[in-house]
Amino acid sequence: MTVTLGIDLGGTKVQVVALTNRRVVGESRHPTPQSDAKAVIDEMIAAAREAAGSADVRAIGVGTPGSITPDGHVSKAANVPGFIHDVPLGPSLSQAFGGVPVAVDNDVRAASMGEFHRGAGRPYRDLLGVFVGTGVGGGLILDGKLRRGRGSAGEIGHTVVKDGGRECTCGRRGCLEAYAGRLSIERAAKRKQSDGAKTVLFEIMERKGRDRVTSSVIADALDKGDDLTHSLIDQAVEALGIALGNAQNTLDMEAIIVGGGLGDRLGQPFVRRVADAMQPRLRVPEHAPVVLPTQLGDLSGAVGAAVIAGG
Amino acid sequence: MTVTLGIDLGGTKVQVVALTNRRVVGESRHPTPQSDAKAVIDEMIAAAREAAGSADVRAIGVGTPGSITPDGHVSKAANVPGFIHDVPLGPSLSQAFGGVPVAVDNDVRAASMGEFHRGAGRPYRDLLGVFVGTGVGGGLILDGKLRRGRGSAGEIGHTVVKDGGRECTCGRRGCLEAYAGRLSIERAAKRKQSDGAKTVLFEIMERKGRDRVTSSVIADALDKGDDLTHSLIDQAVEALGIALGNAQNTLDMEAIIVGGGLGDRLGQPFVRRVADAMQPRLRVPEHAPVVLPTQLGDLSGAVGAAVIAGG
Repeated sequence: MTVTLGIDLGGTKVQVVALTNRRVVGESRHPTPQSDAKAVIDEMIAAAREAAGSADVRAIGVGTPGSITPDGHVSKAANVPGFIHDVPLGPSLSQAFGGVPVAVDNDVRAASMGEFHRGAGRPYRDLLGVFVGTGVGGGLILDGKLRRGRGSAGEIGHTVVKDGGRECTCGRRGCLEAYAGRLSIERAAKRKQSDGAKTVLFEIMERKGRDRVTSSVIADALDKGDDLTHSLIDQAVEALGIALGNAQNTLDMEAIIVGGGLGDRLGQPFVRRVADAMQPRLRVPEHAPVVLPTQLGDLSGAVGAAVIAGG
Repeated sequence: MTVTLGIDLGGTKVQVVALTNRRVVGESRHPTPQSDAKAVIDEMIAAAREAAGSADVRAIGVGTPGSITPDGHVSKAANVPGFIHDVPLGPSLSQAFGGVPVAVDNDVRAASMGEFHRGAGRPYRDLLGVFVGTGVGGGLILDGKLRRGRGSAGEIGHTVVKDGGRECTCGRRGCLEAYAGRLSIERAAKRKQSDGAKTVLFEIMERKGRDRVTSSVIADALDKGDDLTHSLIDQAVEALGIALGNAQNTLDMEAIIVGGGLGDRLGQPFVRRVADAMQPRLRVPEHAPVVLPTQLGDLSGAVGAAVIAGG
């Protein structure tokens, strides 16, 4: 048996799937080592071997954050240890697997391809994948074709929803990510708390033994009726409504998929609220795109990476 | 000799070009009759015959406002007399010219195709054409291909630049067109004047014998240092900066062309200001798109319509 491997590299985990005839036949997940680039690559290789099992590997696709060169080098991936500098990721993986072809692409683009070809996007020709996690990333497929532009297409997280508004992780103001990204929500909650707002968000975080406000911490705070968290999520929903409405008015797409750590965790009710917030902003409201949650969940990225590699 | 005709239908004029071997060999411009649809179609036919001269017509392309069916019927074009109802524009023109094929498309999309294939966009693979006139329209060409979506792609004029902001001609709030469209600028100036603001805008309009604030009235008021007009144009520039930045962050295009009545009249200095307003909003500032004025000016639409018809 031969398999195509898809690897999703993130700041906390390495997710691998092995595909044969478009089906997932192997899977593995390892924590991302927090030391250096060599350790990360070794862990990716180990996870990949585990997912492949005894099968022959014919090609590998990788979805990664950061900047990617055409020959598979990665840099500027701030959340992956050592990957802020140039890392020859593609060549290293290829060498470890006897010279197989390795395709390295952006993680969010890979996840969009996963949903388009094997997930919720299968019935459609167009797709905007919006991944709401620590930040907000986007991947665009138009008329069946992944839009890369000159390498940076899909950055819907950094479209402006409120000019001069909340500070974003990118240093500018008023981006979608400044309202809908998990890290921005955490920072806003901290500021509000220092200003005297009451919230159980950080108690929940500590009780769960976390050092950051994860998606499940946010979900728990919402369940407990925490006013501050509800108000921050309301703002995130409105921000998503504006940004998705703008993208739709510009592109007139068939479908929008909302995923990512926070999107997947809050699920269908959240996705429906985002669609409702988008609707009044549409130029042609009777041609609204379908707005759906992901089908592959946190496997979108790994499956999409395998698809990009031909699997 | 055979020619392909391109017709740009507007609320005030019908512009026709005749192309042979990609060159303009004939041209005519007639005022749009202000009576009914039959008179408009007859005038289009007369203008088309004039542009064709003695040449054989092999095909006709039309750029029109409004909704367009696949068989060339037009409706919902509020500014063209009689065209608010269903008008069999394509079939009527075809019949008048002995059954030649007639392609009917959106006016702004046609203008974008004109600039892409025969104007300022020739060196590029991607192009967003932004036409700032009475309203603000957009046409999108990605990887050399016109993006139609399900018929409404390119509506950048109705992307939100300030949520809950100035009322737009479409009835919603805060669209780009509410700040950058000529009609919105005229309305805002009237409101400000009623509120006590001083402006020479309406004196200039009357002196020029116009019943509306045309692009040349705005240009004259700017030349005279009219504070209100300068402030409204400053807002238009910022609004364009936000909307173009958002489109660029989403699509990572090579070029943006700014034209239309107001865009063409204010020309390169205005276009440069728009580019400067966009720059700080870019996710990848070092990959800014080229931002250019049109090359074909008010012929973009007619030339593009001929291109769509194969000319």
